[in-house]
Amino acid sequence: MITPTVETADMVEMVREGLKSYPKDAAVYIRPMYWALAGDELGIVPLKDATGFAISLEQIPMAAPDAATTLTRTRFRRPVLEDNVVNAKAGCLYPNNARMLLEVRARGFGNAIVTDALGNVAESATANIFMARDGELFTPIANGTFLAGITRARHIKNFRDNGVTVHETVLRYEDFDAADEVFLSGNMMKVTPVKAFDDTQYQIGPMTRRVREMYWDWAASDRG
Amino acid sequence: MITPTVETADMVEMVREGLKSYPKDAAVYIRPMYWALAGDELGIVPLKDATGFAISLEQIPMAAPDAATTLTRTRFRRPVLEDNVVNAKAGCLYPNNARMLLEVRARGFGNAIVTDALGNVAESATANIFMARDGELFTPIANGTFLAGITRARHIKNFRDNGVTVHETVLRYEDFDAADEVFLSGNMMKVTPVKAFDDTQYQIGPMTRRVREMYWDWAASDRG
Repeated sequence: MITPTVETADMVEMVREGLKSYPKDAAVYIRPMYWALAGDELGIVPLKDATGFAISLEQIPMAAPDAATTLTRTRFRRPVLEDNVVNAKAGCLYPNNARMLLEVRARGFGNAIVTDALGNVAESATANIFMARDGELFTPIANGTFLAGITRARHIKNFRDNGVTVHETVLRYEDFDAADEVFLSGNMMKVTPVKAFDDTQYQIGPMTRRVREMYWDWAASDRG
Repeated sequence: MITPTVETADMVEMVREGLKSYPKDAAVYIRPMYWALAGDELGIVPLKDATGFAISLEQIPMAAPDAATTLTRTRFRRPVLEDNVVNAKAGCLYPNNARMLLEVRARGFGNAIVTDALGNVAESATANIFMARDGELFTPIANGTFLAGITRARHIKNFRDNGVTVHETVLRYEDFDAADEVFLSGNMMKVTPVKAFDDTQYQIGPMTRRVREMYWDWAASDRG
């Protein structure tokens, strides 16, 4: 409902300009944002052509490769298109995720495995999720309830290009109980190893190391 | 997740102070608001004791008593506690309502009758809803998916104090097809008559006139 106002090429130019303020090797997280500047008489429906825009550049160091997190179940779920704007990366989706993080941190865990309304695993509270079993990869199939991220897509392509089978499929909590390895995938940290899901312990194993190596090889190449 | 910082008595004093800027008979809509000023390292979970606060006073004239709206169905639904913060009057709930309004305005209607996840009627896109049939009142029973407002509660009390039966119950779209009268109830407009729901036409009848009279009698009394 917010009218976009900035061409992609102009956005890229602004980012490049902004990045000049940072050291060459700085890890900078880039957040372009639109928001509504004004609404109708009730203040609910955004007015057309009243769009705010900003790009936030924030220096956020990459986590160490062996900085693993822990996961648990959450009572909260991903919304569906009928009751929230899951077809956008929208600020209004975040309070739900914040509740998940508060809930699981209070129980001593780092993040949550979150299901959709059907009880199938969707992602974590902050990133997409993968599991490895018997030398193959599994990740929840994109079903409209979570953002299937560009980093998720990159990992899938990298694995497949290297001859590893990746299943985009329906996964339950029980599948994660039976996994050999689990890692999170997002644009901020690229790969976050997982060392436990409730009472189940995982190794930071060959698949988790491999996905990281493939990602950084790609990022350092001409294609990245 | 946002730490409240202002005592109710102080809020009331601020509002009284602000209202001095308006003519005595001005209709002023009062919106107290809290928001998070800062979040954790991911920017998702609000920090404790980093709370913004404001009271907005906006002069919004009351609609004429015979200014009736029209309603239709919407594909969008109220969220549930598992996937959004329906236990708060929170800004993150409004984009869903904005979609409803855009959808129904494009079809020439003024507002929507919105269901919950179970397909039962919850409210309109902006206010609670009542229907009258055979001299009795009906309104969706509070089930956690919508804000059961203070104006809704006032209307229910006023009717019951005057010997009219009010049913807080489960209602379907079909019940509204069979209604004699329908009106919306919210803090901004108190009572909004409804003259149509899709192809069903309603009169602005005795119950709609009565709820308005009782409300303004109460508001003008020592109790209001």
